[in-house]
Amino acid sequence: MKGMFISFEGTDGSGKTSVIKEVERYLKVAGYDVVITREPGGVSIAEQVRNVIHDVQNTEMDPICEAYLYAASRRQHLVQKVLPLLDEGKIVLCDRYIDSSLAYQGYARGIGIDKVKAINDFAVDGVYPDLTIFINVKPEIGIKRILEHQSTHEFNRLDREPSEFHKKTYEGYLELVKLFPERIKSVDGERNIKAVSMDCFKLIKDLL
Amino acid sequence: MKGMFISFEGTDGSGKTSVIKEVERYLKVAGYDVVITREPGGVSIAEQVRNVIHDVQNTEMDPICEAYLYAASRRQHLVQKVLPLLDEGKIVLCDRYIDSSLAYQGYARGIGIDKVKAINDFAVDGVYPDLTIFINVKPEIGIKRILEHQSTHEFNRLDREPSEFHKKTYEGYLELVKLFPERIKSVDGERNIKAVSMDCFKLIKDLL
Repeated sequence: MKGMFISFEGTDGSGKTSVIKEVERYLKVAGYDVVITREPGGVSIAEQVRNVIHDVQNTEMDPICEAYLYAASRRQHLVQKVLPLLDEGKIVLCDRYIDSSLAYQGYARGIGIDKVKAINDFAVDGVYPDLTIFINVKPEIGIKRILEHQSTHEFNRLDREPSEFHKKTYEGYLELVKLFPERIKSVDGERNIKAVSMDCFKLIKDLL
Repeated sequence: MKGMFISFEGTDGSGKTSVIKEVERYLKVAGYDVVITREPGGVSIAEQVRNVIHDVQNTEMDPICEAYLYAASRRQHLVQKVLPLLDEGKIVLCDRYIDSSLAYQGYARGIGIDKVKAINDFAVDGVYPDLTIFINVKPEIGIKRILEHQSTHEFNRLDREPSEFHKKTYEGYLELVKLFPERIKSVDGERNIKAVSMDCFKLIKDLL
């Protein structure tokens, strides 16, 4: 693959999505060919699966079913969008990838990181990001930010989980940073967006 | 589990669904507590996934994504419907289960039976039917039957596959009958529905 695959991870309210847009801008200014995409979703079939996952009516969803749906969405998005972009030599900035499943379903839902990784092995087929940036924002701050943006933020089924779940997800991410120190870099996300984005940009720049 | 779990398998046009209804009638007449259900679907979340799988617009669906979606639907249906019914002591007649994935995605799509079984291991978690009945109808006859019922049969994305795919699926089932001779019994489905159903009823009756 000629391009570069960067994933961004973090709990809800980590500011991930805003940071990615800012990083994209820096990379474009620096002359790079960069594309933003997201999970779950990014292509039609994956967006349909995303709707099933996020539907607030689907309160009875089994955790393993949920893990499969994320894996299905991931596979379709990878094959139909990410791999072709990497083949074209693009820098792909992906809002969430396999680590979200490991932190949310594996750790926070209690399925186990190893088991969720095993479920996802067929989806990613060995394709891991060149770099994964964890936007590190403590859950109490993330939750506060979400509540402040209640009027503009649409709450999906996972956002509505109790704060205990968001704390668990955060612990899950810290665990992943320990497990995969070569690939996952933690960036302090509790600062202003420009400072956070500049740190991310530097990490990516070091790889280019 | 106090109940009994029976799955029915077969290619499209095998008459499976009609046979199951007839078998249910025989079992009820014989005084048994019996419930029909189906895959993919059977409960709301699984039906939503079924809609994504069957949508004729989704022609770009990756085979592994497809396998995950069936596994997601299977897991939700098993946990939310089949297991509770078995706990209540019911006889559950299930229109398709894991063998459909092994025949369709594993064999016909070429992913491999072992790989699709591995994907599904987390969904079924060791829960296999007490008996699986394969309604054995040669694909050329099955396809002919489907074409004859074109006006009443709604063609989904998989029905629309070329006849080569249906032949492959049939071969896949024959392979499964060889691989799991204890669990999967083949019934000649090229006779009238009452004769086919009576054979199925007898196989079930032998287990009760």
